Amino acid sequence: MLRTPIVPRVSETDGAGHINNCFVPIWLEAGRREIFRILTPDLSFGAWRVALVNTNIDYTAQLFFADDAEVLTWVDHVGTKSFRLYEEVHQTGRLCASGTATYVYFNYDTQQGEAIPADARVAFTEHMREPEATQAV
Amino acid sequence: MLRTPIVPRVSETDGAGHINNCFVPIWLEAGRREIFRILTPDLSFGAWRVALVNTNIDYTAQLFFADDAEVLTWVDHVGTKSFRLYEEVHQTGRLCASGTATYVYFNYDTQQGEAIPADARVAFTEHMREPEATQAV
Amino acid sequence: MLRTPIVPRVSETDGAGHINNCFVPIWLEAGRREIFRILTPDLSFGAWRVALVNTNIDYTAQLFFADDAEVLTWVDHVGTKSFRLYEEVHQTGRLCASGTATYVYFNYDTQQGEAIPADARVAFTEHMREPEATQAV
Amino acid sequence: MLRTPIVPRVSETDGAGHINNCFVPIWLEAGRREIFRILTPDLSFGAWRVALVNTNIDYTAQLFFADDAEVLTWVDHVGTKSFRLYEEVHQTGRLCASGTATYVYFNYDTQQGEAIPADARVAFTEHMREPEATQAV
Repeated sequence: MLRTPIVPRVSETDGAGHINNCFVPIWLEAGRREIFRILTPDLSFGAWRVALVNTNIDYTAQLFFADDAEVLTWVDHVGTKSFRLYEEVHQTGRLCASGTATYVYFNYDTQQGEAIPADARVAFTEHMREPEATQAV
Repeated sequence: MLRTPIVPRVSETDGAGHINNCFVPIWLEAGRREIFRILTPDLSFGAWRVALVNTNIDYTAQLFFADDAEVLTWVDHVGTKSFRLYEEVHQTGRLCASGTATYVYFNYDTQQGEAIPADARVAFTEHMREPEATQAV
Repeated sequence: MLRTPIVPRVSETDGAGHINNCFVPIWLEAGRREIFRILTPDLSFGAWRVALVNTNIDYTAQLFFADDAEVLTWVDHVGTKSFRLYEEVHQTGRLCASGTATYVYFNYDTQQGEAIPADARVAFTEHMREPEATQAV
Repeated sequence: MLRTPIVPRVSETDGAGHINNCFVPIWLEAGRREIFRILTPDLSFGAWRVALVNTNIDYTAQLFFADDAEVLTWVDHVGTKSFRLYEEVHQTGRLCASGTATYVYFNYDTQQGEAIPADARVAFTEHMREPEATQAV
């Protein structure tokens, strides 16, 4: 599991007084930095290898500006050419949002999905959700 | 159905050369302005009445900076206290993203969901998806 | 002068109830789309030719979510390798923000500034501020 | 001086391959969190006390996605009702952006500027730029 600290920004709040829901996908993507590094070790966009195909996010509690938040990121499923992450946003002990993000391992030159390389598959295993945790959710 | 024109911004692109996926939820929320106006006619945050509970977005084709885009917004389902929207993002004749957003009609003072008022229910019917289209999805 | 309509987004508001100041530079950049097109006619990033060197923005009145806004963009000064734009944001008849943006005509391959081409200089003249207006500021 | 670590996000890059200039004001505002806390100790928007009047930013070097950045924030000048901050963004030992932000101490209920309270003035002194540094810039 990867842990990414998030310090909320004024620009991420909205007129309803909390963190605007549109910044939750941004925080969740911020939580994937080490996942991206597994697939593109130098994080260069010339060698970028992921294309997002789906996100499904449950908003379970309001997020506020005053307190620090944290994104937790797990690898949830690895297929031949695609993989799914599961992520949670916590603040002051509350689960505020959770969701999945499904990516294709993608070659932007050929505009085709490709098989996820063996070394990435191995690196992903370090961040897999426990089978028990999977059942509990 | 509501149609919202979107002119892509440089700040909405990313290093991979297209519109970053995190701006799709922002464009989709932009498409809900008239929905929000049905529930809060003066669009004031003091009378704001929606809380997002889920978004589920399929990213089906890349969105680019150079061409105008359009968000289409339908009311997909109306329950007692909640409602679901269905939206699509089109660019140059391509369906690039589609998704649902589920909201609770929410009283921020009491922090409770409430029954959607009758006049809003009537207004929603104008933007309902055709039953056929609903079945097709 | 270029006119760019802006429909404020919920995600652009902040907890203080108005449009967050950080979205003003984003709106102002949105107002430069046709300027960018003069320098990069197909708006492709592979042929991108501008690098920002300074922005100076005065925030003169609050911008709100409920009303449409408009960005006005003028070319203020054209040098050999650089040019300066002057822009204003208006809402409900009020001047809410104004500012300059100074760009270098930049070759990202050589990482060097270059002379602004003659055809761009001609195209810029169409959007120049009136000399009188320039003096007034 | 306040130090705020920034981990660049994919969504903050743009098609030109670097951090988009519009995210620099967002990072700089992120650097002001403890300044905001001096004026609004619980960081609640109901007691928010600052209104931005000017920002002036020099963009001196490109910011990239792959490396961590840092925002440095100083109090540059304190007047009766207004104050000015000076900030820098550094990445991999390079000064990439610097700028000032001028705020009025503002009462959103009366919509009037007010005198900065004595305790805030004292707290500001801890973050003042050295006179020498001021001369050097």
